[in-house]
Amino acid sequence: MFTYILDYNSKIPIYEQLYVHIKEDILSHIISSGEKLPSKRKLAAHLKISVMTVETAYEQLISEGYIYSVSKSGYYVNNIEKTLSITATDINPIPVRENLTRSDYIYEFKTNAVDTENFPFSIWAKLMREVLRDKDKELLNKSEPKGLYSLRIEIAKYLKAYRGINCQPEQIIVGAGSEYMINLIIQLLGENNKYAVENPGYHKIAKILSAYNIDTEYLPLDDYGVSMEHLIYSNINVLHVSPSHQFPTGIITPIKRRYEILKWAAEKNSYIIEDDYDSEFRYNGRPVPALQSLDNNSRVIYMNTFAKNLAPSLRISYMVLPWDLVYKFDNKFQFYSNTVSCFEQYTLTKFMAGGYFERHINRMRNIYKSRINTIKNCLNQNDNIVIKGENIGLHIVLEFNKNVDINLIIEKAKNKGIFTSNINNYYFKGNHPKPALVLGYSGINNENIVEAFKILNKIW
Amino acid sequence: MFTYILDYNSKIPIYEQLYVHIKEDILSHIISSGEKLPSKRKLAAHLKISVMTVETAYEQLISEGYIYSVSKSGYYVNNIEKTLSITATDINPIPVRENLTRSDYIYEFKTNAVDTENFPFSIWAKLMREVLRDKDKELLNKSEPKGLYSLRIEIAKYLKAYRGINCQPEQIIVGAGSEYMINLIIQLLGENNKYAVENPGYHKIAKILSAYNIDTEYLPLDDYGVSMEHLIYSNINVLHVSPSHQFPTGIITPIKRRYEILKWAAEKNSYIIEDDYDSEFRYNGRPVPALQSLDNNSRVIYMNTFAKNLAPSLRISYMVLPWDLVYKFDNKFQFYSNTVSCFEQYTLTKFMAGGYFERHINRMRNIYKSRINTIKNCLNQNDNIVIKGENIGLHIVLEFNKNVDINLIIEKAKNKGIFTSNINNYYFKGNHPKPALVLGYSGINNENIVEAFKILNKIW
Repeated sequence: MFTYILDYNSKIPIYEQLYVHIKEDILSHIISSGEKLPSKRKLAAHLKISVMTVETAYEQLISEGYIYSVSKSGYYVNNIEKTLSITATDINPIPVRENLTRSDYIYEFKTNAVDTENFPFSIWAKLMREVLRDKDKELLNKSEPKGLYSLRIEIAKYLKAYRGINCQPEQIIVGAGSEYMINLIIQLLGENNKYAVENPGYHKIAKILSAYNIDTEYLPLDDYGVSMEHLIYSNINVLHVSPSHQFPTGIITPIKRRYEILKWAAEKNSYIIEDDYDSEFRYNGRPVPALQSLDNNSRVIYMNTFAKNLAPSLRISYMVLPWDLVYKFDNKFQFYSNTVSCFEQYTLTKFMAGGYFERHINRMRNIYKSRINTIKNCLNQNDNIVIKGENIGLHIVLEFNKNVDINLIIEKAKNKGIFTSNINNYYFKGNHPKPALVLGYSGINNENIVEAFKILNKIW
Repeated sequence: MFTYILDYNSKIPIYEQLYVHIKEDILSHIISSGEKLPSKRKLAAHLKISVMTVETAYEQLISEGYIYSVSKSGYYVNNIEKTLSITATDINPIPVRENLTRSDYIYEFKTNAVDTENFPFSIWAKLMREVLRDKDKELLNKSEPKGLYSLRIEIAKYLKAYRGINCQPEQIIVGAGSEYMINLIIQLLGENNKYAVENPGYHKIAKILSAYNIDTEYLPLDDYGVSMEHLIYSNINVLHVSPSHQFPTGIITPIKRRYEILKWAAEKNSYIIEDDYDSEFRYNGRPVPALQSLDNNSRVIYMNTFAKNLAPSLRISYMVLPWDLVYKFDNKFQFYSNTVSCFEQYTLTKFMAGGYFERHINRMRNIYKSRINTIKNCLNQNDNIVIKGENIGLHIVLEFNKNVDINLIIEKAKNKGIFTSNINNYYFKGNHPKPALVLGYSGINNENIVEAFKILNKIW
């Protein structure tokens, strides 16, 4: 008979103590496989506990499969072979704590920074509170797979007004970031596609494609964007481009080249993924029309994000699909739940519908423009440096006319607390024709730009 | 000389009107390719506008590539071939409005419903307001790629306390829903894997795998979960299982079978994706230990979600990776931004740290348990129906002992406003051995259960 010491003063219920004792005895083979357990009544009497307590412990052991009951006979121990006995792959779980320390830089010309100082936080918080107050239970339901319909209406209106894009809310898919969108596109377009990205370009796209083992070509650029010669002689059928403000060179693809790319796509039945990531911030004249707005052949998948113009923490991007892909999504991918929380979708809807988004963009455009002017002023006396890509977006390229050691400049700047980056970092192969730096100015204010350039002007 | 009518009363600036006129003339070949434009001075005098206005219009045309300037000569029209001239694929954009109408059912036994009536909305809103007040600028920054560290600490504590899982926050990845997690796992595990899912099972997993054209086997179940015979003789190396409460059958895989599956994985160097989607809601005795907690060979990827136990709108799931995959993620996938908004991550952290999550789970467990009891009471007099899978989770199976036309029952129930589903819907191939219904009870309260069963008892 099993004799266990049960602790009546413990917080752990008696049935659970009994269950643990028996389980441990089974696992350590003190009770053998096939052995019959004492009846509930006998064990209860032996341990001076209630039959109900034993029954509860036995039921737990049954439900976990340690024992089984045979009708009108009793309880028996199962044959449990622990995986411990087999040779274990020796993985040593060294719990390395993640490095959560902040940057040591004082002046950061990062291209992925966003000006959180100028985010209209109090308005956003006010709208959030309104959503919390008004929406209540609706917030707990899932949104439609493509995103909240009301948000998609606002996005369609915005695209019409600011990017000349005519689209229906049905064509728009909202999702948790542009990288997630690329995942969706890969599934939408299916197998046996050959992708191309710009070289130099935005690394993450190529990384995602490579994570899926998808063939990717790197197309060189000329002064107008992707080289048509290379595009035409490639055998790719999905092209990722950023024609409004090529990353990182800042090239704005002119209308002629836009039509050439569209013609290529129409003739080859290829798709173009147009990444319009920072086109809101155009500082001179009207925006160049998006490829999507010039496309009569439904070849363009238009992508944009609120990460660059609002806050990266929001994780809200969207894309506009051509109708054939809309139908495909509706038929085959409706099973995907939308990845953005309803709460933030409602808040963003209010933010756009209330005109706050437009005002914020206009305000930020002026702020960013003044930063470019500050940089221009700071560079005034230097004939060796040419600014490129300064009419749009959130970063510029500084090209050096004389031969300088760009890595030495970056290193020296780093030692003075200034973050800059080499344009060659964005080349998958080859190098930029001239030594050049990429400077993002979305995360640094005018005062700090002036301070940083005092130092930089001494370095180069 | 170009003669355009300019509207001085219009809100559209004169330079923009001029730009539009010239652009349209270029596109309609009224001005030919190669033609020289009038000089800025001449055109300004002709139209009685300032030279600066003409210059702005010309610059816009240059930046969009319609014209180009030749130094010391003047402005010329580019050769723009519009894609209009080539044969367009005739896609007819019929803007079909999405069907946004609500369900017509009165009593819904849906398996994907969540009880939003009992969500602690006022507490959640209070925490949200606290986050808005206290966190301020931090909310605008991106979270770490794996998710907010403080949230991952709370999840690790919870897993330790409730599921016997020992893991470090470094092993946890937070993401926008379980479907997104499967996308990540596919990339983490790489090419040339053969996956298996349970048959019957949760359809979405197989759909995602098929969207990536990944070979998937459907493994049959016996009374204890995935059939070992089929598993051992398959050539798969990634197995998706729901051992705590198999969907839809409700089978709880006993400890013996758990060790067998783990042994198979260790010997074959395979991975197990353990989907623990509703294990919080266990109604009798202690929970069966998770596969992850029994695994000494780092073969288990543990997945769970807050969609089932909090609200589907939150889109927050997580997984616990074995260390080899943690290292792989840290080395190769840090480029992925986290897909969940910081705001909701902070709120959920507070919700868990404040003990609200635990209280909510305990409360819901009692509510759901009373619903099962209500169903049992409603079925009391019916010997032909056996309830399965009632000890855990958010749905049960009603198996009919006599031969009934299950689809006729579902149809009749539908006509009375009751939603039920045929278990065969969850079979990829084959049928359930007996006619059976799957009833989710997370979206229907006791009163409605009683009303629905008054009708159902008449139907079967």
